[in-house]
Amino acid sequence: MSEAPNPALLPAGLMDLLPPEAEREAVLVEALMESFARHGYERVTPPLLEFEEGLLAGSGAAVAEQTFRLMDPVSQRMMGLRADMTPQVARLAATRLAGQGRPLRLCYAGQVLRVRGSELAPARQLRQAGIEMIGGAAPEADAEVALVAVEAVSRLGIQGISLDVGLPRMAQALIEAAGIIEPLAGRLARALDRKDAADVAAMVEGRGPIAALLPEFLAAAGPAREAVAALDPARLPESARPIAENALSVVRAIAARAPGLRITLDPVEFRGFQYHVGVAFTLFGPGMTGELARGGRYLAAHDEPATGMTLYADAVLRAAPDGARRRRCFLPMGTPAEAGERLREAGFATVAALSATDTAAALRCTHEWDGEAAIPLKTTETV
Amino acid sequence: MSEAPNPALLPAGLMDLLPPEAEREAVLVEALMESFARHGYERVTPPLLEFEEGLLAGSGAAVAEQTFRLMDPVSQRMMGLRADMTPQVARLAATRLAGQGRPLRLCYAGQVLRVRGSELAPARQLRQAGIEMIGGAAPEADAEVALVAVEAVSRLGIQGISLDVGLPRMAQALIEAAGIIEPLAGRLARALDRKDAADVAAMVEGRGPIAALLPEFLAAAGPAREAVAALDPARLPESARPIAENALSVVRAIAARAPGLRITLDPVEFRGFQYHVGVAFTLFGPGMTGELARGGRYLAAHDEPATGMTLYADAVLRAAPDGARRRRCFLPMGTPAEAGERLREAGFATVAALSATDTAAALRCTHEWDGEAAIPLKTTETV
Repeated sequence: MSEAPNPALLPAGLMDLLPPEAEREAVLVEALMESFARHGYERVTPPLLEFEEGLLAGSGAAVAEQTFRLMDPVSQRMMGLRADMTPQVARLAATRLAGQGRPLRLCYAGQVLRVRGSELAPARQLRQAGIEMIGGAAPEADAEVALVAVEAVSRLGIQGISLDVGLPRMAQALIEAAGIIEPLAGRLARALDRKDAADVAAMVEGRGPIAALLPEFLAAAGPAREAVAALDPARLPESARPIAENALSVVRAIAARAPGLRITLDPVEFRGFQYHVGVAFTLFGPGMTGELARGGRYLAAHDEPATGMTLYADAVLRAAPDGARRRRCFLPMGTPAEAGERLREAGFATVAALSATDTAAALRCTHEWDGEAAIPLKTTETV
Repeated sequence: MSEAPNPALLPAGLMDLLPPEAEREAVLVEALMESFARHGYERVTPPLLEFEEGLLAGSGAAVAEQTFRLMDPVSQRMMGLRADMTPQVARLAATRLAGQGRPLRLCYAGQVLRVRGSELAPARQLRQAGIEMIGGAAPEADAEVALVAVEAVSRLGIQGISLDVGLPRMAQALIEAAGIIEPLAGRLARALDRKDAADVAAMVEGRGPIAALLPEFLAAAGPAREAVAALDPARLPESARPIAENALSVVRAIAARAPGLRITLDPVEFRGFQYHVGVAFTLFGPGMTGELARGGRYLAAHDEPATGMTLYADAVLRAAPDGARRRRCFLPMGTPAEAGERLREAGFATVAALSATDTAAALRCTHEWDGEAAIPLKTTETV
């Protein structure tokens, strides 16, 4: 069932999930949550609406423009409809869960809403599922959240995933250490952002060895095995050295625990990671499925170190192999209750006739009970 | 974990679910959905926001005052944040699923939001899970939806449930047939609503045999076995007869299929069922858990006959027995990956030490890996 929604019925970027996608999405999200729980991440469920100050604090500032606001008639204060769940989890960690031992491992799943979609990502409602580790500063913490996310999607049968590691603060650190100021600094950042190697090379020409690292790092982006060589801290200015050292530790910790995982490293990548302070992660699915997850290190409330990963249910749904469809068995009028119960226990959905005009075909059944067994029907198209 | 939320942090009626309730609620809701799917109800997931005309059409009118509105900057039209999912399912049945054979069995789960809570029910965000059968007019359709809901909560281990059957149109039909007009008609309806037998009796005094049925029906409310006797269609005016006949058919169909179920019948109950046209159902949990579900017969889009049940996750969570808590095993630094994997496969959540200062106690573990096995710890309080 994949008809385009009628634009007259629903606002742009909002859609219905129909059978069988709606069930598949829910099952996949709960399977992700089960994977998170296996690694000790405990579920929290914050509300869809909060006071806007709370929702837009900290990392929430990055989605302030994308947050729907509405007036609460009870408190006469403005509320926001969450555009991201990470700030809510950070709030919980800093308040009701402030007394719990660190690192605190939490997971969550829920819908988020955004004021506008983009041309490439028109959806304004997204289902997220994610993990946050609050209070762990070690590179092993970043490695764990990345690998728990990798394992969670792998357990759904998704093959051919790759993990991209970015260093959102590196480009800025090098631009500053090279003494490059506005307006060139801004133009350079934009050229790096669109990965325009020729433009970057032209702009740093004659500006010394630190500036020269920028086109070199841009060119080095790729499989981590090779890209790490370019990141040798010895060649870096003081301010950029801890960024590189941390990234190398994280990449090594991941590679040691998941030797078969395809890891790429992009030392000057910083797009879309406004609030990340250490490594940033993007998990890609096979082929054209796009980004399955995003995450990385950030500062939670009261500057507590934190790291997390957010998975996007729509991308996971596109990437995951189709599960077996539920068989539907038509139960003619008068079928004994025990027969239906036995079929359900055997994994069938049963569809009971409620009137003499009900038929297996009209009710899109794959099987029909003949009094003794569920007989497969010729038409197996079920939705 | 059951601290009261800090009112300064969250708007009234909105709350966080913490461990372990958040996971329990999600698991219970998915278990309900699995029960629905076993009976052929296919899942749909409509969006949280819709244009207000769509959301408030049909049965949605009943929750119009409880619906948050916001302006869509893209379409410049007003949207509503759903206060109920039934109108959304009715919209789907009438549009994208209009071509599918009837009766159409759909199920859904999701959050709904309400502008104001009441003193007795302060929550403004509720998680619903429900079923709708669209296009089936037979009493067997009502019986099926009631019994699928009963089975779904029974499968969670909830004992001592009872199903109340109300006839939302009966009181009005009798008042009209007795020739009682305003303002007495309104006063009578309010007296019936608060079950004030003395007041009802006084108001119908000397107004004939039809009016006399009202206090009689009020007194007859109770176990269905006795209450059905009062409903003999032969004693009823023309307009009320089909209401009674239908109710008797539904009650008999339910009792035949679930002989052990406690069924009560309240012939003049009509509270809170503004859009119901045939029988209305309320499913009660044991003791003080209150209403687990509500539902009944209504008219979907284009006056298509429909019947459904909505379950409330908060009430289900209160009524369901506690499941076994997940055991948490601490993995000291250097624990081999295979050991962790084996423990997870055995049903443990594993919590890996990421630094030498991490301890099993601080991370609220119930067990610790000693190199060979998961050793239970003395402190078993895990959250």
